[in-house]
Amino acid sequence: MQKDFVREITAMDEDFAQWYTDVVKKADLVDYSSVRGSMIIRPYGYALWEMIKDELDTQIKKTGHQNVYMPLFIPESLLQREKDHIEGFAPEVAWVTHGGSEELTERLCVRPTSEVLFCEHYKNIIHSYRDLPKLYNQWGNVVRWEKTTRPFLRTLEFLWQEGHTCHATDEEAHEETTKMLNVYGDLLENILAIPVIKGQKTEKEKFAGAKFTYTVESLMHDGKALQSGTSHHFGDGFAKAFGIQYTDKEGKLQYVHQTSWGLTTRVIGAMIMVHGDDRGLVIPPKAAPIQVMIVPVAQHKEGVLDFAYDLKETISTYARVDLDASDKKPGWKFNEYEMKGIPIRLEVGPKDIEKGQVVLARRDTGEKIFTPIEDIESAIIKLLDEIQHNLYQKALQLREEKTTKAINMKEFKETLEKRSGFIKAMWCGDLECEEKIKEETGATSRCIPFEQEEITKECVCCGKKAESMVYWAKAY
Amino acid sequence: MQKDFVREITAMDEDFAQWYTDVVKKADLVDYSSVRGSMIIRPYGYALWEMIKDELDTQIKKTGHQNVYMPLFIPESLLQREKDHIEGFAPEVAWVTHGGSEELTERLCVRPTSEVLFCEHYKNIIHSYRDLPKLYNQWGNVVRWEKTTRPFLRTLEFLWQEGHTCHATDEEAHEETTKMLNVYGDLLENILAIPVIKGQKTEKEKFAGAKFTYTVESLMHDGKALQSGTSHHFGDGFAKAFGIQYTDKEGKLQYVHQTSWGLTTRVIGAMIMVHGDDRGLVIPPKAAPIQVMIVPVAQHKEGVLDFAYDLKETISTYARVDLDASDKKPGWKFNEYEMKGIPIRLEVGPKDIEKGQVVLARRDTGEKIFTPIEDIESAIIKLLDEIQHNLYQKALQLREEKTTKAINMKEFKETLEKRSGFIKAMWCGDLECEEKIKEETGATSRCIPFEQEEITKECVCCGKKAESMVYWAKAY
Repeated sequence: MQKDFVREITAMDEDFAQWYTDVVKKADLVDYSSVRGSMIIRPYGYALWEMIKDELDTQIKKTGHQNVYMPLFIPESLLQREKDHIEGFAPEVAWVTHGGSEELTERLCVRPTSEVLFCEHYKNIIHSYRDLPKLYNQWGNVVRWEKTTRPFLRTLEFLWQEGHTCHATDEEAHEETTKMLNVYGDLLENILAIPVIKGQKTEKEKFAGAKFTYTVESLMHDGKALQSGTSHHFGDGFAKAFGIQYTDKEGKLQYVHQTSWGLTTRVIGAMIMVHGDDRGLVIPPKAAPIQVMIVPVAQHKEGVLDFAYDLKETISTYARVDLDASDKKPGWKFNEYEMKGIPIRLEVGPKDIEKGQVVLARRDTGEKIFTPIEDIESAIIKLLDEIQHNLYQKALQLREEKTTKAINMKEFKETLEKRSGFIKAMWCGDLECEEKIKEETGATSRCIPFEQEEITKECVCCGKKAESMVYWAKAY
Repeated sequence: MQKDFVREITAMDEDFAQWYTDVVKKADLVDYSSVRGSMIIRPYGYALWEMIKDELDTQIKKTGHQNVYMPLFIPESLLQREKDHIEGFAPEVAWVTHGGSEELTERLCVRPTSEVLFCEHYKNIIHSYRDLPKLYNQWGNVVRWEKTTRPFLRTLEFLWQEGHTCHATDEEAHEETTKMLNVYGDLLENILAIPVIKGQKTEKEKFAGAKFTYTVESLMHDGKALQSGTSHHFGDGFAKAFGIQYTDKEGKLQYVHQTSWGLTTRVIGAMIMVHGDDRGLVIPPKAAPIQVMIVPVAQHKEGVLDFAYDLKETISTYARVDLDASDKKPGWKFNEYEMKGIPIRLEVGPKDIEKGQVVLARRDTGEKIFTPIEDIESAIIKLLDEIQHNLYQKALQLREEKTTKAINMKEFKETLEKRSGFIKAMWCGDLECEEKIKEETGATSRCIPFEQEEITKECVCCGKKAESMVYWAKAY
């Protein structure tokens, strides 16, 4: 019976893209609508986002940031104030031209990101060094006019948080950029069990208007990379374009130094593609809205449901637990909660009750553990920990298996022809080589990692003196 | 010094509208931007919204609802599917006509509300009676193209939650409509300390597309009414327009019965206008992001700041507390936190420490209470309760003072000429009388209250047989 059900989704190794589409639909994460390129996030998908949001919001507040809310619309003239920024974003914004039956005198774009709105506001409220730093964050929706879209990974509209901060000095802004990249790294590694490479984007790949961009990059099951969160140091570029100045302690006018950083619903896609398998989703316990699902067996037999409800109440004091007491068959329920990636399934039937035990089934390994009733609490707590740890380790191992060094273009290409994955290779720093590598291999520079190593002394592409080691990959 | 500061905002009785504008700005709730009619919600304003959101979200989940997320855009053809709905909303939507540099083949409106998106989705996912009820809610932003706007009360874009549910029967949908109105009523009365009148909107005032609309109405300090939350019973009107059907237990196809209900950032405006005074905001303790603000006096003296920090740590175990240890003068801080409406100011200086006491200053009454250090916890807990209760009672008293019965149009007009407020008057149920009353007095029907009383037997306007008693008022 389980096998039949599994056939409902395409096997990962057969067609990974189709597997992904099947899973997000079958696990009830999303639905489509008549709005091209947008998705409906269904209750289970949204619960995942709420888990991530709550965790990240706590960290954002702990690090001294405050939430605010900026308008959805940006007048065209405001968007144009910073030259690189408008060049980067203009091709992909949605334009509002009419309000009710009136044509607008100036078009409004639907925010693709809110730098210019924050800048305008900062100019209003920052006057003195006493007003600094300003550490703001916003949770909201943004729109980018994408041609090809996929749920969570790339959609016309997506949900995210965008932090925007102002500092007295370049050093402080730099420190902030690093701090928030680490907050993202911790979220991904500790909560979503996704190992990350931290590093800096190349000039070509940095954010439009930034001095530099830091990124956390992760590797999916199919060997393609996914940019999972970025943190930008703006220097004083926006400050100069918007005239955001403060009077320092000596009474001198200075420009502020700014950062921005964002993390989106995309990380749900990362979680799916890093941990999922042919049975569906696998959710790391710390990110799971439901950690333990109780499935009663022969629930019509006297005492089974009462027992299950009591269990649920007890377990709810130390884990996120639910009970499916519907009249669907246990086999259907097993499949359903495997598809949804619930970390632990707790099975209990009349015979278990007689023997004073329950069955704990691990989603990640499939292992079934017969557990005496008096040991349930310690067993569940231990198991959740183990699953979390195991998922991270598996993902790390996969990434290591799919990470290869290349010392010349031949190696580079041959490796990527065999399989996708990270290629570590030296780079001279020239745009020309970066573009040539992309053209010849399909791989883009993912980041210049903070943890450098010297593979050779020469650029993998042109053979000239190398500046740094770069992670390259085909990417989402 | 405090007097000088108070002069910074207009007195309420001099110009209430100006007072409101002054307060939202001076208390750092909002700022303006170059986006016409939209507002920036600043950290303190957003913290208020987060308090309301968290509380309401808890109640929404407790009553069995799940959060989802629908697209921001609605294709024009989809919006047109329910006739009354499009007629009601078309004049006030923003239209996206271009994506990037391309003109769209079909215009997209920025959602003014999401009924049609939910309906389209419900048609996809509801098939059997087993799929019912569906109890969904969404937190998000919506846009309505308003001409005249005021922060929180009426803005082009606002934040809200919108619940959308499907039920097997009309009775269940009716029950849901009532249940969620009560959730709103409880939030307003118990958390925001705003007494409400619950009732039904007239045909003229009901939601576009609804069978009927329930509302909670409250009265502001200036005697104008504010609709603070609405809950709509749709019957099967949308279900028929969208073909949302399920197979019942007998195997027969049936239409679902639907509701929707929404509460917006507007309630922050209500809170301001019900409780505020000439010194600024007054926030009810249960809605206050900061309930106790510690202001050290002579903080440069040895031991004062240490003492204040210790206090903060202790108090944080039972109340939301903050400490202002900046080098601003205590007088400035007193004014600042009065303007922000913090329920309790705790003053402590060297002499207080010597005497083993602190001063607790109530924002609502101005009373100062010398409190022995060992009694602080019980005093604060008691005081927060008292302030919450007092604010509700004061608001209730104000509403009662400003509620008058009218038995004929002369009385109706004379009362409203003297002062704004609720007028309770009988109504025949005819649109003509409702419109005439509005034309002659400026008052609109606020609701047909559930708690009816028979003032006379005749309509206040036409003198014909009355159908019900109605609350009338000039309104925001």
